[in-house]
Amino acid sequence: MNHDNTNSQKIKLTGEQIAQHNSPESCWVIIHGKAYDVTEFLPEHPGGPKIILKYAGKDATEEYEPIHPPDTLDKYLDRSRHLGEVDMGTVEKEEKEEDPEEQGRQERIKRMPILEQCYNLMDFEAVAKNVMKKTAWAYYSSGADDEITMRENHNAYHKIWFRPRVLQDVEHIDTSTTMLGTKVSMPFYVTATALGKLGNPEGEVILTRGAKKHNVIQMIPTLASCSFDEICDAAEDGQCQWLQLYVNKNRDITKRIVQHAEKRGCKGLFITVDAPQLGRREKDMRSKFSDVGSSVQSSSGDDVDRSQGAARAISSFIDPSLSWKDIPWFLSITKMPIILKGVQCVEDVIRAIESGVQGVVLSNHGGRQLDFARSGIEVLSEVMPVLRERGWQDRIEIYVDGGVRRATDILKALCLGAKGVGIGRPFLYAMSAYGLPGVDRAMQLLKDEMEMNMRLIGCSKISDLNPTLVDVRGLSMHTATVPSDTLGSNVYDPLVGPKEKSKL
Amino acid sequence: MNHDNTNSQKIKLTGEQIAQHNSPESCWVIIHGKAYDVTEFLPEHPGGPKIILKYAGKDATEEYEPIHPPDTLDKYLDRSRHLGEVDMGTVEKEEKEEDPEEQGRQERIKRMPILEQCYNLMDFEAVAKNVMKKTAWAYYSSGADDEITMRENHNAYHKIWFRPRVLQDVEHIDTSTTMLGTKVSMPFYVTATALGKLGNPEGEVILTRGAKKHNVIQMIPTLASCSFDEICDAAEDGQCQWLQLYVNKNRDITKRIVQHAEKRGCKGLFITVDAPQLGRREKDMRSKFSDVGSSVQSSSGDDVDRSQGAARAISSFIDPSLSWKDIPWFLSITKMPIILKGVQCVEDVIRAIESGVQGVVLSNHGGRQLDFARSGIEVLSEVMPVLRERGWQDRIEIYVDGGVRRATDILKALCLGAKGVGIGRPFLYAMSAYGLPGVDRAMQLLKDEMEMNMRLIGCSKISDLNPTLVDVRGLSMHTATVPSDTLGSNVYDPLVGPKEKSKL
Amino acid sequence: MNHDNTNSQKIKLTGEQIAQHNSPESCWVIIHGKAYDVTEFLPEHPGGPKIILKYAGKDATEEYEPIHPPDTLDKYLDRSRHLGEVDMGTVEKEEKEEDPEEQGRQERIKRMPILEQCYNLMDFEAVAKNVMKKTAWAYYSSGADDEITMRENHNAYHKIWFRPRVLQDVEHIDTSTTMLGTKVSMPFYVTATALGKLGNPEGEVILTRGAKKHNVIQMIPTLASCSFDEICDAAEDGQCQWLQLYVNKNRDITKRIVQHAEKRGCKGLFITVDAPQLGRREKDMRSKFSDVGSSVQSSSGDDVDRSQGAARAISSFIDPSLSWKDIPWFLSITKMPIILKGVQCVEDVIRAIESGVQGVVLSNHGGRQLDFARSGIEVLSEVMPVLRERGWQDRIEIYVDGGVRRATDILKALCLGAKGVGIGRPFLYAMSAYGLPGVDRAMQLLKDEMEMNMRLIGCSKISDLNPTLVDVRGLSMHTATVPSDTLGSNVYDPLVGPKEKSKL
Amino acid sequence: MNHDNTNSQKIKLTGEQIAQHNSPESCWVIIHGKAYDVTEFLPEHPGGPKIILKYAGKDATEEYEPIHPPDTLDKYLDRSRHLGEVDMGTVEKEEKEEDPEEQGRQERIKRMPILEQCYNLMDFEAVAKNVMKKTAWAYYSSGADDEITMRENHNAYHKIWFRPRVLQDVEHIDTSTTMLGTKVSMPFYVTATALGKLGNPEGEVILTRGAKKHNVIQMIPTLASCSFDEICDAAEDGQCQWLQLYVNKNRDITKRIVQHAEKRGCKGLFITVDAPQLGRREKDMRSKFSDVGSSVQSSSGDDVDRSQGAARAISSFIDPSLSWKDIPWFLSITKMPIILKGVQCVEDVIRAIESGVQGVVLSNHGGRQLDFARSGIEVLSEVMPVLRERGWQDRIEIYVDGGVRRATDILKALCLGAKGVGIGRPFLYAMSAYGLPGVDRAMQLLKDEMEMNMRLIGCSKISDLNPTLVDVRGLSMHTATVPSDTLGSNVYDPLVGPKEKSKL
Repeated sequence: MNHDNTNSQKIKLTGEQIAQHNSPESCWVIIHGKAYDVTEFLPEHPGGPKIILKYAGKDATEEYEPIHPPDTLDKYLDRSRHLGEVDMGTVEKEEKEEDPEEQGRQERIKRMPILEQCYNLMDFEAVAKNVMKKTAWAYYSSGADDEITMRENHNAYHKIWFRPRVLQDVEHIDTSTTMLGTKVSMPFYVTATALGKLGNPEGEVILTRGAKKHNVIQMIPTLASCSFDEICDAAEDGQCQWLQLYVNKNRDITKRIVQHAEKRGCKGLFITVDAPQLGRREKDMRSKFSDVGSSVQSSSGDDVDRSQGAARAISSFIDPSLSWKDIPWFLSITKMPIILKGVQCVEDVIRAIESGVQGVVLSNHGGRQLDFARSGIEVLSEVMPVLRERGWQDRIEIYVDGGVRRATDILKALCLGAKGVGIGRPFLYAMSAYGLPGVDRAMQLLKDEMEMNMRLIGCSKISDLNPTLVDVRGLSMHTATVPSDTLGSNVYDPLVGPKEKSKL
Repeated sequence: MNHDNTNSQKIKLTGEQIAQHNSPESCWVIIHGKAYDVTEFLPEHPGGPKIILKYAGKDATEEYEPIHPPDTLDKYLDRSRHLGEVDMGTVEKEEKEEDPEEQGRQERIKRMPILEQCYNLMDFEAVAKNVMKKTAWAYYSSGADDEITMRENHNAYHKIWFRPRVLQDVEHIDTSTTMLGTKVSMPFYVTATALGKLGNPEGEVILTRGAKKHNVIQMIPTLASCSFDEICDAAEDGQCQWLQLYVNKNRDITKRIVQHAEKRGCKGLFITVDAPQLGRREKDMRSKFSDVGSSVQSSSGDDVDRSQGAARAISSFIDPSLSWKDIPWFLSITKMPIILKGVQCVEDVIRAIESGVQGVVLSNHGGRQLDFARSGIEVLSEVMPVLRERGWQDRIEIYVDGGVRRATDILKALCLGAKGVGIGRPFLYAMSAYGLPGVDRAMQLLKDEMEMNMRLIGCSKISDLNPTLVDVRGLSMHTATVPSDTLGSNVYDPLVGPKEKSKL
Repeated sequence: MNHDNTNSQKIKLTGEQIAQHNSPESCWVIIHGKAYDVTEFLPEHPGGPKIILKYAGKDATEEYEPIHPPDTLDKYLDRSRHLGEVDMGTVEKEEKEEDPEEQGRQERIKRMPILEQCYNLMDFEAVAKNVMKKTAWAYYSSGADDEITMRENHNAYHKIWFRPRVLQDVEHIDTSTTMLGTKVSMPFYVTATALGKLGNPEGEVILTRGAKKHNVIQMIPTLASCSFDEICDAAEDGQCQWLQLYVNKNRDITKRIVQHAEKRGCKGLFITVDAPQLGRREKDMRSKFSDVGSSVQSSSGDDVDRSQGAARAISSFIDPSLSWKDIPWFLSITKMPIILKGVQCVEDVIRAIESGVQGVVLSNHGGRQLDFARSGIEVLSEVMPVLRERGWQDRIEIYVDGGVRRATDILKALCLGAKGVGIGRPFLYAMSAYGLPGVDRAMQLLKDEMEMNMRLIGCSKISDLNPTLVDVRGLSMHTATVPSDTLGSNVYDPLVGPKEKSKL
Repeated sequence: MNHDNTNSQKIKLTGEQIAQHNSPESCWVIIHGKAYDVTEFLPEHPGGPKIILKYAGKDATEEYEPIHPPDTLDKYLDRSRHLGEVDMGTVEKEEKEEDPEEQGRQERIKRMPILEQCYNLMDFEAVAKNVMKKTAWAYYSSGADDEITMRENHNAYHKIWFRPRVLQDVEHIDTSTTMLGTKVSMPFYVTATALGKLGNPEGEVILTRGAKKHNVIQMIPTLASCSFDEICDAAEDGQCQWLQLYVNKNRDITKRIVQHAEKRGCKGLFITVDAPQLGRREKDMRSKFSDVGSSVQSSSGDDVDRSQGAARAISSFIDPSLSWKDIPWFLSITKMPIILKGVQCVEDVIRAIESGVQGVVLSNHGGRQLDFARSGIEVLSEVMPVLRERGWQDRIEIYVDGGVRRATDILKALCLGAKGVGIGRPFLYAMSAYGLPGVDRAMQLLKDEMEMNMRLIGCSKISDLNPTLVDVRGLSMHTATVPSDTLGSNVYDPLVGPKEKSKL
């Protein structure tokens, strides 16, 4: 058969033809009505060959869709392996088994709380947990190892308390500020998160629209489900977007991506520096584990199962050799401000300033990479006093992300010296549960909280925020209590309140 | 129809007439047997128009009663909109649906523990939680955001420990002291809390009577359910009351309130400075959410539901522009001592002294305004050493409120330098559960605890209390433990005590 | 009727006669087969008149027995009110109702674990909790207010960690030491606790025998269920006992008690200084609350129920005016070493030394008096560095009690400078559950733990113990974590281990 | 009967003959088909006579096997007491009762998760807990007293956080290092743990094979279930093993063991110095408690049951008089490097250096000896700054064990200055649950974690690790929070998320 893939293809392939190529030796799959020969690609697939072989000779669209941007096949599979259109009528429909878990989810979707019952960002997460597909939830909600850093990210804010000023005129509150020169309504941005279509079939463009509505910036992820151009196209005139970049080993590809983004109007280049390798997330891995095969006991440790959930599927093409030596090159290929995303100690902030970049994001990648990485907010409290001592506090813009859930969190970061904060998962959850209205309401709630809390700490504008408004003495102490004495606590007879009269 | 509202009105309005005005275009409501045209008032209603429209054309008394002082309509609705008496016999009674929640509550009321079973202030709260209406409980018990400050208020006292002195002659204990020149039996006062009728149909006058009986001071709230004069009238000869003031944008109104209070004999003016905007309290908001509307999924984030529970309903007319510049004016309009209620850091205490006021209350409004505001007791431990260093400790009286539940709490505050403490919710709960006898017993229990604990720390009078009697080293540390390692803790097999013999 | 109480009384009183005196106006009770007219004593009864009136005209023996030493009536009721013997055959037996709680307890007693299953001191407590009468358990196990100090007492030991030395010759371990000049086998003593018969009908003499067997000292409580002489009589030749003393307002009584104890051979006088008033213990109070009367709602706070459990019943005759001025008098009336029991800060230890007493017990009365009193072990760590700085560490003997449950606790106290530790409740529980064998095993377990742990920290004798063997950096920090964020923790999806295969 | 035990024995003993010797006066047992007269050995048996007497006159093989190395009888029972072979056909088989607990276990074994579902070391423990025999689990999983040190060992790692460096070239990660001169692939070794056959019938040789496969070192335990030579024989050419040594009172035996190990090629002698007496482990003791006899209430504390689980059974022959004076002798009898295992404070590390040994293991014996011993990692953070100050940091190799579960734990120890870490229980659990494939996978998982985490902290080789990469400020604080206020927490009404619509 001639694999020549011409637009003039007349005769469509049939399901029967495809079905014959169902082995590692010859593996075809159907995606969006077209067939592809991925035999040679199997060993290169970032998600491992196993998951492709599951669909060998079949239609893989449903599984493929949310975790690959639309231009993936064009980019990574040679044109000669694009086999052309398939007569989908001839493709056998797979009988889906009744999945009790999915039935339960559909039931929960019917009983979903209405949007007005969400009063804070955690509420969206509570709803999303109930209505998302298990694997999508696992991908979004998981973190590295024991997920201790992931939880510490919000936890750390609990160690910072306010020292409000009273009797300030706070009639008019202005929450606007600037980020990398762009005026925004509120001091947060939508940070880059991968695979938006796992949560909502429209994907990241929903975030684009939400950001526009509230006049905040969206950072476009390299690993979006939508293509970069789709996300740019969704932006309205004058809407500011930034690019988050995983640096490819092939610098030409990287250069192309960067310069394309600049051409499309991106106003900031955020180079991810905390992910030379994508993290192991066990919740994600476990959610992928299928009962198939579970009856066969593996007999040797050799055959370590390396299918590691959605995280691995997207981890290809990140260059672990990226280093400080590469920064001048980046400065040379773009005029966009360059920001290093994922800096985690004061020494590297100083080095970043010396290297000439315009900003850093103090971040641990949402707790998805290194467990026991410190929270961004804690690093910020380490960084700023050192910079101030050197008089360097204005030489770069410092952002923080991870764990932001309340306007009080944002205010704490700004008091400590951050220019703004990135928020990721909460908007994903709002989008997954309620689509654009969810994102809209989430942002509105933050705005309401922000205005109120600025009033309550006695600040009418962002520039009023300063370190004397917070008490951070507890922040740097990582406390783990002495393990409990179970014999002693079991035998303690706790006090109880007054007892009701017994029923008559 | 002539809306002229004369006392000579002969013909009463009928239910049928009222019922026709049931829309935003023309909205009448019945309150205490009289009709009012609130059409024009709808957009101004602090609680939002929605809640009024629910009763358009109907009798709204039951909902209206506990959350509006009796003089509200006279004060805020033009006389021309007072339509006169209604022939209540002609008004259709609404069939109330059987509410299983209310039935359960009535059942719980029947089985209420008797008063003698309450041995401490928490016990009243436990009973009140069971027997109060859900919405009333939600209003009283709720706090800002995650209610972390609300709980920290009591929690903070747990970080202060005693260093008692032994072998002091403590046969005779004198718990009396003075506050703003008034002699009182115990170093606490009943602080201002809003909407007393939510808990008890008689409202704040019960607290007046309780305070009299135990010779302590009551602070009269601006947002009481009873009118100011009702509360003054309930006081007996020589009983001391203070006025808590929310400052109105219209300073004439404020001036009138202040001077009226002074005339009625109030001995202190407590200006609330921690509430330029009333807080969001999600528990309260959620309790108001009705299942009505919940079948309709809102399709856009635009229509953010702004009905925010009882808190919002009373938040009008607070001036967010109130500032230090206004203090001289207050000093000029009254001879009452002025106390700033809601100061939260040492800088503002110093400023208060410099501004010439006679006192401050270190308070975060019971945790109802800004989450992560520090507890009053923690602020006190920050304030006093600074004042002592300046020799300013006697230039003002310092009060603390929030989280006081035990006499030990009061003693800690006094040891650290407070002149007295305010107690709010506990008396509300005692009143809600048991009326005046509840308030009486709550105060008596505090008194018993106070005498005993003064003996046990070796002090026979209030002036013996001093900072060397407490250990506050743990107080300023806001500790949040490292998130738990669930895999590890799940696998730990805890020790257990000896096993009973198996049954024969 | 002639109340003359002569031994020659011939005619016994009848139940019918007694039964007529069943009111406050004339109140007779039967105790151990004899009648007493307690009418005039009613208002003086430390436990309040109510509890006596419950038995007016009846046999009160069962209730009276465990909480009054046998010589109580002789001591406190005028001989003229002793009415003589009763013909018990004529006294109506009260039908006891079936008490389901008591039935459950009897059931639990049958299934009691055998003694060999108790491997540590907590195990006895676990058994005792199950098999003791509810009121007895409540009296022993309760503490002041929220019982925070009571629990902190053991908790504090958890903040002290060892710095063991290895490669010491620890073949032979000698746990013996001296206390106030007496050689003992182990560095603990049985401290004074009240009302031993609540736990075991034989009462404190069981502890006397246990102490003898293991050659440790018993401190005889003023408020024992057995009389002082009974406890002295139970001691064997050369067995050392100490006297714990509550000081009576009538110093003649106190002098008589002290001098009698000295004559009977007591080797130490421990004056309780932390109880000018006996504590409120709500668990104890609540356990006494009877359902009788609970159908009547009290209508006023006036009638505060003052029946406050077993604690109040024994609180009479303690002089709250006792002060440092009294110490010289004590030194003048006895040659026994005098030790102040209940000292709680370094200032008072210094004062004790200056006053010439031979020792102090750093104690908070087992957490039964002042809540938020610090643990004895914490006070010790405050005291010793100050004494060492002054070179005073050998001028008195310092003891610690409260919360000791493990030999490691004892070793920590001794490393920090204590001469010995007092242990109270654990032996009461062992006695309540298993009698003398229980006490014996409890002491043996401590001994086994002690030998092992001395080996493991590298010390072969008590004098090897020293402060460099412990790390106390965490001890003085009273930490209460930031209240938890329930929305956040509810939404967190914790990691779980591998799932079992589903059942086939 | 002639006890002469010759190889020429012709006539086998019969079950009937053996059965007659079933008392303390004459006690024979069958082990592996041979009879032994242990009458005289009874009082010497480290596990106590009771457990042997249970099998007097019977076949004891099943109980004996896992807790005694094969050469035990030859070593410790005089040849004259070896009675020769038994005709096993004549030995009455004991009817085993159906044990519901064992049935449940067999059921759980059938449903065991497959190996690929184990994603981390805790997962093996979770599986092992389910499938191991209760007594075996109790022996492996138990610790001293309240098991607080045992849990603190891992817990302590949670107080150490990373300060990663970004933009380092981490393409190639080299996890190899050297230990005592031996090159190893990863910086951990398999530390010595006793009684491997409790978990797997093959015992410690499985660990030997796993260690070989991953090129890490195994430390051979004195108290292995396999004999020393069996474990040596299982090693492949060039595979490095170390010897863990309990020092016998009889130094000749010790010398023989050491010199034999050296001859067999062991490359390090680890002398255990933290176990002059083996610990009490109550979970282990309790697991041994049999219901037999439990119907008889012991009447006296005298008869303290001393059967203390598996721990005691192996505690013989450890010399508690071992001291620093013995070190020169050890240095004189072997050329192997000598390492002291169980050092617990900086003073002893310094003394170790001065005594001329080559290394120390900072260890508390897995929390099995002294409760409240500090974790090895905490001791390390105390030790290294002192050594560095003296310039002694390279004079010995420092190892740490206890609580290592994640590669992050290993990295923390290495950053702080450890040469390597020992891992014990996790490999035992992997072996118990899955045999060699389990051990293999456990090591592979650690390796995967290690590579990833080195990348994420910015280090490409072991020598890059250094103290600036970790934040240890929280490490030395042993925090126990103030006991909770149960009345207060019971009455708090926690926030909840949005409610689902009610079912239609």
